[in-house]
Amino acid sequence: MHTDLVAALDIGGTKIAGALVDGHGRILLRAQVATPAQEDGDTVMGAVAQVLGELTASPRWGEARAVGIGSAGPVDASAGTVSPVNVPGWRGYPLVERVRAATGGLPVSLIGDGVAITAAEHWQGAARGHDNALCMVVSTGVGGGLVLGGRLHPGPTGNAGHIGHISVDLDGDACPCGARGCVERIASGPNIARRAVERGWRPGPDGDASAAAVAAAAVAGDPVAAASFERAAQALAAGIAATATLVEIDIAVIGGGVAKAGEVLFAPLRRALTDYATLSFVQGLEVVPARMGTDAGLVGAAAAALTGVERETVAGV
Amino acid sequence: MHTDLVAALDIGGTKIAGALVDGHGRILLRAQVATPAQEDGDTVMGAVAQVLGELTASPRWGEARAVGIGSAGPVDASAGTVSPVNVPGWRGYPLVERVRAATGGLPVSLIGDGVAITAAEHWQGAARGHDNALCMVVSTGVGGGLVLGGRLHPGPTGNAGHIGHISVDLDGDACPCGARGCVERIASGPNIARRAVERGWRPGPDGDASAAAVAAAAVAGDPVAAASFERAAQALAAGIAATATLVEIDIAVIGGGVAKAGEVLFAPLRRALTDYATLSFVQGLEVVPARMGTDAGLVGAAAAALTGVERETVAGV
Repeated sequence: MHTDLVAALDIGGTKIAGALVDGHGRILLRAQVATPAQEDGDTVMGAVAQVLGELTASPRWGEARAVGIGSAGPVDASAGTVSPVNVPGWRGYPLVERVRAATGGLPVSLIGDGVAITAAEHWQGAARGHDNALCMVVSTGVGGGLVLGGRLHPGPTGNAGHIGHISVDLDGDACPCGARGCVERIASGPNIARRAVERGWRPGPDGDASAAAVAAAAVAGDPVAAASFERAAQALAAGIAATATLVEIDIAVIGGGVAKAGEVLFAPLRRALTDYATLSFVQGLEVVPARMGTDAGLVGAAAAALTGVERETVAGV
Repeated sequence: MHTDLVAALDIGGTKIAGALVDGHGRILLRAQVATPAQEDGDTVMGAVAQVLGELTASPRWGEARAVGIGSAGPVDASAGTVSPVNVPGWRGYPLVERVRAATGGLPVSLIGDGVAITAAEHWQGAARGHDNALCMVVSTGVGGGLVLGGRLHPGPTGNAGHIGHISVDLDGDACPCGARGCVERIASGPNIARRAVERGWRPGPDGDASAAAVAAAAVAGDPVAAASFERAAQALAAGIAATATLVEIDIAVIGGGVAKAGEVLFAPLRRALTDYATLSFVQGLEVVPARMGTDAGLVGAAAAALTGVERETVAGV
């Protein structure tokens, strides 16, 4: 990737972040506001415009060649619209058109947030040098994205890699998405905590009933806490093995708050993977922690913008 | 694809078929022998050589530009080797090298049999015109392949699309592959028949206890027979929905003996798909019967050979 500047937007249910990023993935300027998630669509767009305003006020803005957006999903890259689950004011919202208008007509690339994280890990993180990779975020939800044949695979609508909502337990518990036994329904942080509490684990005196507290209890030897992580690991293993069996990946990168539990999650996950990744061509699959930090969404959105610029440059030759 | 001739080989546990195929996918000459599946590796290769001998004896052989092989899996396209489950004499067998030697050094492309069927359906069958498709064979086993972004996606080893061995029931019955609750363990013909018998269905006077007989009983109103197909449909739906959610496909094509049951399978499959394909970007997914017949393996192997020739031509410019 060359060294032009691009603008990046990372849009979630909690915060809207923006940055000017150079061709090496360095963040030169950043801006952030809280997402007015419960307000109407124009108010949410106003928050985006505020972030963009801080970027366009920079003396370096004139060097910006494109804008990349990673957004909470579902997105529709082909229509240029977003419908983030946690931002009810945006349903089929024409974000690409609005951002293009707000930036003087720059080319705008839109991808889902799981795809953005994947672009970042492939460019600069744990998936670097891997031509076929799954990158995941295990947190309040479970998201992901794919690199296939050396390139990001966003899919036609920018949503590919949605591993959190594949069913690994077809008769399992109902998931808010409408299906049953989804990976997220078993392995997300809130579900790890809920299952531990249902089986008798109790938070300590501070009342912290988060997955992080369950992880701490598991480290301290609580078998119910450990079992809840083991069940999450089993669901993640089944989902990762399914992905490898379907598209051939050689590495799965896992980030997000739940991955911070470290070996409490990764040890049973590696064990369970040998149970589900059985065919010869998936047995070498590695599972590793993510390396990118909280800027992954911005860096990945920048990668998408730079790839878009490159594609146009090539097409224009 | 241009109009050069290519040679195609379709290698399975029952038969080894070969053909000369033109650039329109027309079969000009064919040869076939039974697979000596329980013999040593050299004997199996002798059967392949016999098929190739019939092709090379043709006056048109001189026009053949390349060889395409679709083989029962697992295959390893990167190493040029095959290890078909039902041909124990071939383990890591260097088939590509042997076929190249037997054909005077022609370029040889190797893909798995599920990938070959997919190439055929995409070229000339039910997936034609679809840039993102899953093609499946539901028969004694369950196999498949993927078209992504308008092109076949064999994966680095030629095995991608192995939907039969993704787990949709992580605590389910043990599968011969070593995992649990695989799609094949629930939805293959033998498993449909076994489940019907276990729940009390009995074959008619002819003693036919095949999945086809179970399908006929379901059509005649037997609820146990119908329920066994419904369970298979549920597992297929969960697997197809998982594939769509992971890579974004807009059509799933299903062939093979079990698909011949028609609406006994497809009606509950379409219903179950609405239960598992819930996210906005997969709700439009279609499921249709395959259109290619028993020549699909040969036609798909020819497609792979032609694509290989095209790639070399482009690279040589």
